[in-house]
Amino acid sequence: MSFEHEVHVGWGDCDPAAVAYTARIPSFALQAMDAWWEHQGLGGWYGLNVDHNIGTPFVKMNIDFRVPVTPRHRLICSVRPNMLGQTSVGFHVDGHQDGTLCFEGDFVSVFVVADRFEKRTPPPDIRAIVERELDEGLRNGAAAAG
Amino acid sequence: MSFEHEVHVGWGDCDPAAVAYTARIPSFALQAMDAWWEHQGLGGWYGLNVDHNIGTPFVKMNIDFRVPVTPRHRLICSVRPNMLGQTSVGFHVDGHQDGTLCFEGDFVSVFVVADRFEKRTPPPDIRAIVERELDEGLRNGAAAAG
Amino acid sequence: MSFEHEVHVGWGDCDPAAVAYTARIPSFALQAMDAWWEHQGLGGWYGLNVDHNIGTPFVKMNIDFRVPVTPRHRLICSVRPNMLGQTSVGFHVDGHQDGTLCFEGDFVSVFVVADRFEKRTPPPDIRAIVERELDEGLRNGAAAAG
Amino acid sequence: MSFEHEVHVGWGDCDPAAVAYTARIPSFALQAMDAWWEHQGLGGWYGLNVDHNIGTPFVKMNIDFRVPVTPRHRLICSVRPNMLGQTSVGFHVDGHQDGTLCFEGDFVSVFVVADRFEKRTPPPDIRAIVERELDEGLRNGAAAAG
Repeated sequence: MSFEHEVHVGWGDCDPAAVAYTARIPSFALQAMDAWWEHQGLGGWYGLNVDHNIGTPFVKMNIDFRVPVTPRHRLICSVRPNMLGQTSVGFHVDGHQDGTLCFEGDFVSVFVVADRFEKRTPPPDIRAIVERELDEGLRNGAAAAG
Repeated sequence: MSFEHEVHVGWGDCDPAAVAYTARIPSFALQAMDAWWEHQGLGGWYGLNVDHNIGTPFVKMNIDFRVPVTPRHRLICSVRPNMLGQTSVGFHVDGHQDGTLCFEGDFVSVFVVADRFEKRTPPPDIRAIVERELDEGLRNGAAAAG
Repeated sequence: MSFEHEVHVGWGDCDPAAVAYTARIPSFALQAMDAWWEHQGLGGWYGLNVDHNIGTPFVKMNIDFRVPVTPRHRLICSVRPNMLGQTSVGFHVDGHQDGTLCFEGDFVSVFVVADRFEKRTPPPDIRAIVERELDEGLRNGAAAAG
Repeated sequence: MSFEHEVHVGWGDCDPAAVAYTARIPSFALQAMDAWWEHQGLGGWYGLNVDHNIGTPFVKMNIDFRVPVTPRHRLICSVRPNMLGQTSVGFHVDGHQDGTLCFEGDFVSVFVVADRFEKRTPPPDIRAIVERELDEGLRNGAAAAG
């Protein structure tokens, strides 16, 4: 089961085509990942940065847009980590409305010392959290590969 | 009891001062008013416009910023109408975090025929909804005045 | 002559009513004030904060919306300070498109020590800049009053 | 020579890490593509939709983030079409600050009848514009392939 983050899509998210403006989608996906980190008890990116001096700047974002998002239904964003490197972490996010997949994307971040913007390995507790939440198939695959 | 709309404030709402950027506050207040219209069963501004051809463009916005908003707590926005004219409606919105008032504002909109952008009176059912939700003191005051 | 900041209004600024979404207007006005501080050689709010440890959080924002903003024309935002207190500064911003006034607003900020969020008086060079740019009538009025 | 769109990055674009928030990058790239369509004399996405009933919803967005974007310099976004199918068009956008590549991305849209959201081929004049602006190497490659 992935973590789910609910977005209340509104009028202000929509463009004159009466659907959520394209740039809102990566913003929703990022909100969902921020909420994922909060759900893990780390205070979201805000807590990671301000309290733990850990930043996770993005290096890559690939999104497929399937069906327009509208204010007719809540947008349910599912988030799960799908990659964990020495100093990087990847997430898959998909967004559903009323049971229909609207978009999905893959995102890669690196861990940095926030106040120096230098790459670092994540501390053991954060590595453990990501490993625990990694898609089970991936984890098994990783084990098989290792 | 006012209608309450909860905002999940995140990293992306904050500026380098590590508090929600000023321009996010009117945006949160507007989201809360949009949610108020949704809560009344009218589908929010989206439903009003797309389904009922009614627009409510703003003519005035006055906001006092009391205390910075942060991602540490959810932001609870309370919304209640505080004025109903022939073709206009006013709302008061205040935002609390962890029991502290962070901002409050007053907003005035006019009713328009959405596809012609012409001022109009609201239909009776919408007028009835706003009257019902008008702050009781105001409603009594209005009655006394009338 | 006020400082003018040009905004390239686009599709993504508009809502399904095909005009700039209400929440974009305070955002445009804030961009224009940020650009004003940059134009004074202070690096905008970013430079003020990061280089000079000075913040200018807002305490009040009053906006009148006159005519919808659209992508048909550039939006010209005129900015001028209209108040200077011991620890506060006020700005008037108006926005024109194709010669028509679309909105105008008044904004009040306080000066703070950025990293402690404590009220402070502005340093003399910043006070001098604001005084020089204060609307001449206001400056004369202030002199007469003083 | 690609079309260049200049973005005035400001305080409100930045997050507490004091760099432009990740979600601002796709937004800047989209603004640049919107400006590209405006530069071609088509009124941007707004004109395409409102005046020509042509929409160009996105189906794919791939962005690599190289170096953080800050308010220290203007962001120069270069835009050029890099693909033209029967009913689709692709763009490459890269963003530079002070001569350094900050991000680059590829974007694919489809042409639709705006008010029915149905896929369509672009009209000949729009096809001609995109063909003219297609990267010359690509155009030659396409000719060789054809």
